Amino acid sequence: MDYEKSYGRYSEFFEKGLAQLFLTLSDVPEPLLSAMKYSLEAGGKRIRPVLLLSACDIFGGDLQNALPFAVAVELIHTYSLIHDDLPCMDDDDLRRGMPTNHKVFGEGMATLAGDALLNLAYEHILSHIRKNPSEGNLSAALEIAAAAGCLGMVAGQSVDLYSENNPSAGERELEFIHAHKTGKLICASLVAGAYAAGAGEEEIELLRKFGEGLGVLFQITDDILDMVGSYEQLGKSVGKDGKQNKLTYPRLYGLEKSRRMAEEKAEQILEVLSCLQKEAKFLRGTVFKVLNRNK
Amino acid sequence: MDYEKSYGRYSEFFEKGLAQLFLTLSDVPEPLLSAMKYSLEAGGKRIRPVLLLSACDIFGGDLQNALPFAVAVELIHTYSLIHDDLPCMDDDDLRRGMPTNHKVFGEGMATLAGDALLNLAYEHILSHIRKNPSEGNLSAALEIAAAAGCLGMVAGQSVDLYSENNPSAGERELEFIHAHKTGKLICASLVAGAYAAGAGEEEIELLRKFGEGLGVLFQITDDILDMVGSYEQLGKSVGKDGKQNKLTYPRLYGLEKSRRMAEEKAEQILEVLSCLQKEAKFLRGTVFKVLNRNK
Repeated sequence: MDYEKSYGRYSEFFEKGLAQLFLTLSDVPEPLLSAMKYSLEAGGKRIRPVLLLSACDIFGGDLQNALPFAVAVELIHTYSLIHDDLPCMDDDDLRRGMPTNHKVFGEGMATLAGDALLNLAYEHILSHIRKNPSEGNLSAALEIAAAAGCLGMVAGQSVDLYSENNPSAGERELEFIHAHKTGKLICASLVAGAYAAGAGEEEIELLRKFGEGLGVLFQITDDILDMVGSYEQLGKSVGKDGKQNKLTYPRLYGLEKSRRMAEEKAEQILEVLSCLQKEAKFLRGTVFKVLNRNK
Repeated sequence: MDYEKSYGRYSEFFEKGLAQLFLTLSDVPEPLLSAMKYSLEAGGKRIRPVLLLSACDIFGGDLQNALPFAVAVELIHTYSLIHDDLPCMDDDDLRRGMPTNHKVFGEGMATLAGDALLNLAYEHILSHIRKNPSEGNLSAALEIAAAAGCLGMVAGQSVDLYSENNPSAGERELEFIHAHKTGKLICASLVAGAYAAGAGEEEIELLRKFGEGLGVLFQITDDILDMVGSYEQLGKSVGKDGKQNKLTYPRLYGLEKSRRMAEEKAEQILEVLSCLQKEAKFLRGTVFKVLNRNK
């Protein structure tokens, strides 16, 4: 299948970039280095870097120039998982069937490994930009930073944490959490890839609209998967506390309505994609892939 | 006194820059925003931003252009303190006489506040650089990122954490910890200020040498203060676990030899400063100030 082939090509390209970066890090003291690598190599699907590279491809950009950004978004995503799993956050012992970072390296080292990955993302980006200070690259970097920070992903995590034991949290909080915790970085990956390719503002805005919708779609289907259970579920993290109180789409709207919401969202963003007037087969495939993981 | 006056001028300038940044953050959800502000406003001496601005001044640079970097180093320093104080790290209840971040906001929110401050540092820098993408600014940014990361500050924190209950840790570890945990960011502040001012490579290298020495001097005198106790001590953080095992200069070399080491280091870096052939009164004053806080 075409979609799988493209996915494989992008993710292989990303893995090479990631491995190359770590060649420069052999002086990082142990066990910090192992803790950083552990979570990066724990079987993530590389969705964000793949989206970033595919967006760059759509606009005929140089994938090599987009690569440091692709590596950076995965570093940021991974740091957020490590910190999310900590006992003071979601308190997860397992992620994708493997012991979480702090279960292997201890809480202190896991905290530092997360910090190190976040910082590394920016060090890697800045090192690339110093050599290639194009306007597109600078915009790509800023897009990622804004999406990851206190008005983006961390904002979402904080509201998630704060709502966990807050009975008054409802629809508004759920939407905020997902738009920020998951949506922002997914959307920024697409937009950053387009910026790195030198796309124009109009195209960027269409891609941003698509990315926002894709983030929501991801979350609805993820919530449904979590509730329904699936073969994937076996490998998913299982929280000990608070998970019962976590806001999810099926819990708030019921399973059937959640499924309908996912379908509507998919239709909506496929339409946005057609406005782009570019060959965007891979992104089209992504929408169907995400939608159908429920089935 | 001249030194105090300059310190006041630089730190006031920095405070304005910090306040201005936070004006743009009113949409950050509570209690995340309060947690971020709490530690930033907890009475830090602003040593790093002041050094950065003074280094920019030495080379006749535009302080306004250096300001975002000054803000960034303080954001990074503050995040590292919040994470250092967590129960899984140093487990400190107090810092500068006030309850630590996690004592007020809980461990999860404190972790997120640290993450948010680290990310904000880069978002702020990148936003500035997109408007002013000079080579000096890009080098300043990279200098800070390299100093903060897994080959810099976080490396030092990780060895510190790992050595705490490791009886074989000695002189080599102590030097590594201090050079990285404290030294790197202090040195990077000076170098970044010089880069932002457009200083040449030769001048940068001299300042780097000075900065490395100043970092060591800071640490020796800090360790001595910690052991001897002082009026400042009352407001310092007091760890609950592991502190007995912490490597310090006086514990390793004795008090008298540590004092002599501090004096020798001060002499050495004053000499480096004279090679600079620039009016560097403030940095000269800083050396004496740091040396004499033991007395």
